[in-house]
Amino acid sequence: MIKSTVGHVEIRKMDSDKFVDSEDQLAIEEPLEIQLSYHAEGERIIKNISVTMRTPGNDEELAVGFLFTEGIIQNSNQVEAIKTDPFQENTLLVSLFDDVEPVLQKTERNFYTTSSCGVCGKSSIDAIRTVSVFRNEEDEICLPAELFYGLPDKIKKQQHLFESTGGLHAATLFDLDGNFVRLREDVGRHNALDKLIGEALLGYRLPLHTSILLLSGRASFELVQKSIMAGIKIIAAVGAPSSLAVHLAKEAGITLIGFLRKERFNIYSAWQRVRL
Amino acid sequence: MIKSTVGHVEIRKMDSDKFVDSEDQLAIEEPLEIQLSYHAEGERIIKNISVTMRTPGNDEELAVGFLFTEGIIQNSNQVEAIKTDPFQENTLLVSLFDDVEPVLQKTERNFYTTSSCGVCGKSSIDAIRTVSVFRNEEDEICLPAELFYGLPDKIKKQQHLFESTGGLHAATLFDLDGNFVRLREDVGRHNALDKLIGEALLGYRLPLHTSILLLSGRASFELVQKSIMAGIKIIAAVGAPSSLAVHLAKEAGITLIGFLRKERFNIYSAWQRVRL
Repeated sequence: MIKSTVGHVEIRKMDSDKFVDSEDQLAIEEPLEIQLSYHAEGERIIKNISVTMRTPGNDEELAVGFLFTEGIIQNSNQVEAIKTDPFQENTLLVSLFDDVEPVLQKTERNFYTTSSCGVCGKSSIDAIRTVSVFRNEEDEICLPAELFYGLPDKIKKQQHLFESTGGLHAATLFDLDGNFVRLREDVGRHNALDKLIGEALLGYRLPLHTSILLLSGRASFELVQKSIMAGIKIIAAVGAPSSLAVHLAKEAGITLIGFLRKERFNIYSAWQRVRL
Repeated sequence: MIKSTVGHVEIRKMDSDKFVDSEDQLAIEEPLEIQLSYHAEGERIIKNISVTMRTPGNDEELAVGFLFTEGIIQNSNQVEAIKTDPFQENTLLVSLFDDVEPVLQKTERNFYTTSSCGVCGKSSIDAIRTVSVFRNEEDEICLPAELFYGLPDKIKKQQHLFESTGGLHAATLFDLDGNFVRLREDVGRHNALDKLIGEALLGYRLPLHTSILLLSGRASFELVQKSIMAGIKIIAAVGAPSSLAVHLAKEAGITLIGFLRKERFNIYSAWQRVRL
């Protein structure tokens, strides 16, 4: 069943000094429960992994993307099936093959807990390094600054949901020539990125070493963390980065760009990848 | 110890066709672990409740605000002490008096899980109704539309962190005459609201039946849910609401305003509280 991503609702519009009763389009937000089915000690276990408030659509990508960026699965060959519960339409069950052992202690919560040591977030960075299946090998990537200026405009045509509702985050991939590759939208920015990474995982296109990730909003620690898991080396955000996002990007050698505008941006880390 | 809310970082600024090496201010984002200490079956139990990525500052408000909006505690008389772990500076321990039994099954996750039944989120709304300590009694509140137009401008002076970093969400309370009462900022919008509600809880000012809540960004389901827990009846958001936020606001009789601009806004629910 295809679920709707945009809903219609009756509203009262206030404009200058009059009311108009009208209709508005809204981004749909609904819970998705991600369950994992795996084999352990001679039996099948079904475990609830996460409940996320998401915009319906690309749910399978979201589920496997989440499992991957949290370090629970390592590749799509481990996934035997992804099923919707016919009685629980907002539940997805991801079944792993019998010989696959999910890494369940490495959840998001553990990342955060281990980083409580203090300001630096050092141990969370260590945790991500340990968990990530991709080595961050040396590269010679060096892109002209002009390439970045044009990226936000290139997705305007693609952001259908944002256009109609004004209420969605987008995560977009470009290649190193600045060509549009793929966009995902969601009410949750982490969901948009999980969908994008999940799509690449299911299509055997990971790691994303030669991609640019464009974020429609702010760059948080969590988004940088997920990007590193997918092997992304260049992140450009239209909004501001947080301090821990910058710290993590620096430690991991990720190029992090913030406040991307038509003729301006800030580079927070690994600026050797951007030239005049 | 007062922790910093703004950090400084060296950046490379790209402006038109030149690089300038410079310094930038960033919103600090750090994990806070909230632990709960309570008495059960003759002994003290310490339980990890949540780890949230937050901007340091007003951490005690955040901790009790979170415990309250999640339905785990009901009032500030239940709280014996709030302590920082001297060895884990990003950990806060909230101790309850011996005779207080925290409501631990009513966590955020349960709200979401119960709402997985389908599109309507009906059971999550029932869950919130059951948990909320405040009855949503009939009221005669009816405010002039002009009052809302001016709200965003009134907080510009107060949003110190947003000014300097461009990267924070704000949750602000006004009284029913549109007078500024209090503002809290955070990298996480739910944290900003939990801080605001936690402050009111600690000051014995709940329920917030005669307040207007202004949200700097979008109105999600979670934010409306937290507002209902605090007895807030009027929510105005600068950004878009999600579909489930509107649904919940309608069911709970909350006035939800979105896309608040200088001379325009949309009313999504309970529009009898706004007049020309």
